[in-house]
Amino acid sequence: MSIFIGELIGTAVLILLGGGVVANVLLERSKGQNSGWIVITAGWGFGVAIAVYIAGWISGAHINPAVTVGFLALGKVAAGDALLYFAGQFAGAFIGAVLVWLAYLPHWKQTEDPDLKLAVFCTGPAIRSTVGNLLCEMIGTAMLMIGVLGIFHENNGIGSGFGPYAVGILVFSLGLSLGGPTGYAINPARDLGPRIAHALLPIPNKRDSDWSYAWIPVVGPLVGAVIGAFIYQGAIGLL
Amino acid sequence: MSIFIGELIGTAVLILLGGGVVANVLLERSKGQNSGWIVITAGWGFGVAIAVYIAGWISGAHINPAVTVGFLALGKVAAGDALLYFAGQFAGAFIGAVLVWLAYLPHWKQTEDPDLKLAVFCTGPAIRSTVGNLLCEMIGTAMLMIGVLGIFHENNGIGSGFGPYAVGILVFSLGLSLGGPTGYAINPARDLGPRIAHALLPIPNKRDSDWSYAWIPVVGPLVGAVIGAFIYQGAIGLL
Amino acid sequence: MSIFIGELIGTAVLILLGGGVVANVLLERSKGQNSGWIVITAGWGFGVAIAVYIAGWISGAHINPAVTVGFLALGKVAAGDALLYFAGQFAGAFIGAVLVWLAYLPHWKQTEDPDLKLAVFCTGPAIRSTVGNLLCEMIGTAMLMIGVLGIFHENNGIGSGFGPYAVGILVFSLGLSLGGPTGYAINPARDLGPRIAHALLPIPNKRDSDWSYAWIPVVGPLVGAVIGAFIYQGAIGLL
Amino acid sequence: MSIFIGELIGTAVLILLGGGVVANVLLERSKGQNSGWIVITAGWGFGVAIAVYIAGWISGAHINPAVTVGFLALGKVAAGDALLYFAGQFAGAFIGAVLVWLAYLPHWKQTEDPDLKLAVFCTGPAIRSTVGNLLCEMIGTAMLMIGVLGIFHENNGIGSGFGPYAVGILVFSLGLSLGGPTGYAINPARDLGPRIAHALLPIPNKRDSDWSYAWIPVVGPLVGAVIGAFIYQGAIGLL
Repeated sequence: MSIFIGELIGTAVLILLGGGVVANVLLERSKGQNSGWIVITAGWGFGVAIAVYIAGWISGAHINPAVTVGFLALGKVAAGDALLYFAGQFAGAFIGAVLVWLAYLPHWKQTEDPDLKLAVFCTGPAIRSTVGNLLCEMIGTAMLMIGVLGIFHENNGIGSGFGPYAVGILVFSLGLSLGGPTGYAINPARDLGPRIAHALLPIPNKRDSDWSYAWIPVVGPLVGAVIGAFIYQGAIGLL
Repeated sequence: MSIFIGELIGTAVLILLGGGVVANVLLERSKGQNSGWIVITAGWGFGVAIAVYIAGWISGAHINPAVTVGFLALGKVAAGDALLYFAGQFAGAFIGAVLVWLAYLPHWKQTEDPDLKLAVFCTGPAIRSTVGNLLCEMIGTAMLMIGVLGIFHENNGIGSGFGPYAVGILVFSLGLSLGGPTGYAINPARDLGPRIAHALLPIPNKRDSDWSYAWIPVVGPLVGAVIGAFIYQGAIGLL
Repeated sequence: MSIFIGELIGTAVLILLGGGVVANVLLERSKGQNSGWIVITAGWGFGVAIAVYIAGWISGAHINPAVTVGFLALGKVAAGDALLYFAGQFAGAFIGAVLVWLAYLPHWKQTEDPDLKLAVFCTGPAIRSTVGNLLCEMIGTAMLMIGVLGIFHENNGIGSGFGPYAVGILVFSLGLSLGGPTGYAINPARDLGPRIAHALLPIPNKRDSDWSYAWIPVVGPLVGAVIGAFIYQGAIGLL
Repeated sequence: MSIFIGELIGTAVLILLGGGVVANVLLERSKGQNSGWIVITAGWGFGVAIAVYIAGWISGAHINPAVTVGFLALGKVAAGDALLYFAGQFAGAFIGAVLVWLAYLPHWKQTEDPDLKLAVFCTGPAIRSTVGNLLCEMIGTAMLMIGVLGIFHENNGIGSGFGPYAVGILVFSLGLSLGGPTGYAINPARDLGPRIAHALLPIPNKRDSDWSYAWIPVVGPLVGAVIGAFIYQGAIGLL
């Protein structure tokens, strides 16, 4: 029960704050409109930090199925528990997306471009390229997994008071450095949950939810996290 | 006495630094003019952090009547003390606003647009919509309350050395992600105290203080904080 | 001897990093040219943090005569030691300014506007107003002093590992919020030391060093720090 | 073995995140295109922090031959170990550069300007001047060395939980303040490793790798780090 609730709350917070910052930057007449990449990446990074402060001691705050799968590959999460993690993550991501829609309620009608409205919910590639986009999501998520394992390695002695902030800085960093080509989903729940919300919510003048791209921010992160987990384990094993 | 003094100092610092950054970005000929949303949100976030460093051990540094009401709803603050909290918060917010006016003294005359001068003191909606604006303030303040309860949950073991900074990052994050529609009052004292100061201070060519909107950043945050407090308590109760 | 050396190193680092960021933003063809107020304020804030990490355990890292005078007013520094603090601070500020000049050596000739070259070294008002400028420097430095006393109050239990960062965030915040009218000297050594360096260094096509303004960023901070120290002491005394 | 592996992983992470942020800002159609100096410097700073979290307890995470040479000059690293450090650093930097190339794969063809493509990999001067560029790299790296020695001085009591973040802020600060003239290599492996990768990788329409400049970001940092190490040791010795 702790797993489901922790992941649900944590992922809802992540998407409320993460989707919220994209809404702020992209939607018409928002006070943060066009405030740039530093705002987007700080918003997602600090959103992760807040989510992990809230849910970290409850469920471990994976808030990302790729991270759960990475831990699964290393035998650090039981297969039965993984389903609880996933359920909480996707449910939380959907709830978070609905909250973003509510928080920015008057702005959907004011925003004409349907691409911008979709972009509040889910990622899309700067240049559409199956190989390139998959590679970018894989590299980004492998880096996320290695970063998480590195930050919380017991030899770092990082406490629960500072750890969530450090993970936030990791995601801030990933956005700054690897977010350019695909908008750094690096998390299947972050992308698919809000994409479903986009399809279901009564958003005026919305476009389709770009389902042809939807598998890339699911498959890329899952594969990348497993690769990252094994690279880290392999490297540590050589010491 | 500690409650009144701590809240007065803390809220005065919050408004001096928070109102100050808006003055810096909006007032004519200021060195930070038009420096954007990242400056606004960093200014408020760090302002909260500094205020909590100063007042945290004195009164707990709610520096926000909505947070006090949220704690009241959870039985963590006595009803009698709440009045002391409110008195300190509104008095401090008024003093902070006067200090902003003094610090930017030569700039009021140089700034022609009376809307910008009002915006230094209190929030206003990007799109005027009673339902939408109330919803946004409620969601933002619920998130604030859940974040505060989450960060300082004893299982996080966050110390008084790092806690104020983490709360600052929470407010930085709320501005980045949920500040777009209403300018994130998320605090009745932050909005109403300086609005009264705007009405009273001898600001050249000022407009009215937009009293028709003034109830929204009071009611929205108060309701949102109570909702947030009960959501958090309810979720923790399920574990 | 620790006092003189710590203050000299700390203030030299402060000015190298603080003057450096202004050079980066203002000088012609620099890679950070026109990168805005967030860069300026982050540069000064982090510069303070680094200076305090380096010099904090050596001399306490006041790196600011106004802070020393504030401590003097509270009886926390001996009058005889104060002279050693001042000597280290002004010598360090001069050295830091010379290092900025060297680090940006090819850019002085490329920059035509002599006002920009002066601004790398010392502050100037956005709107020239003796009362307004003095008030702004006084309020900013009072806030600095209250912030320093608050952050390091023993009840906060802030350690030497995090304290320097917190002071950096304080100065970052002061720049964001109160830097608009005068460029936030809030430190007589930070302003006067590099102003003297500007007068002495062989900078091509430089203007005069604006000596008529030079007393404001000396007197304002000194008075402000004493006021801030007494406000803090008075408030704490009421508890 | 720990030295080689730690430095290889750490430097690969540094370059993936550091080169990545430059790619994001410079390459055509990237989502962070033209997002400015704050993004560049935050990206490198946080990249250092993440690299040191991962590799700090393994090898000490110098991830920079200049830092290794600085420690060598102070007798804190054995000469035989230094070669292992260098090998890991250059191999890691090369690997990191290849990963940046892969992560931004679709963007190389879209970017016409060959100077921008080179700038993703290695530094170049804003104004070409052997003396000026060398001076800037020397001052920057001396400041880096003094900062590292200062942050980790035992009297600061900085723990492994916060230390990597503080070093990240140091490099963030160096970029903000001293990055303007040369793009702050301050690290021979950071510059030369990716420059070799640029020469070898099949990048469409690339220019030559500017070998005439390549010695400056190698020699400048090495000399600067030794100077910084001796300044710090000398100053501490006077206490």
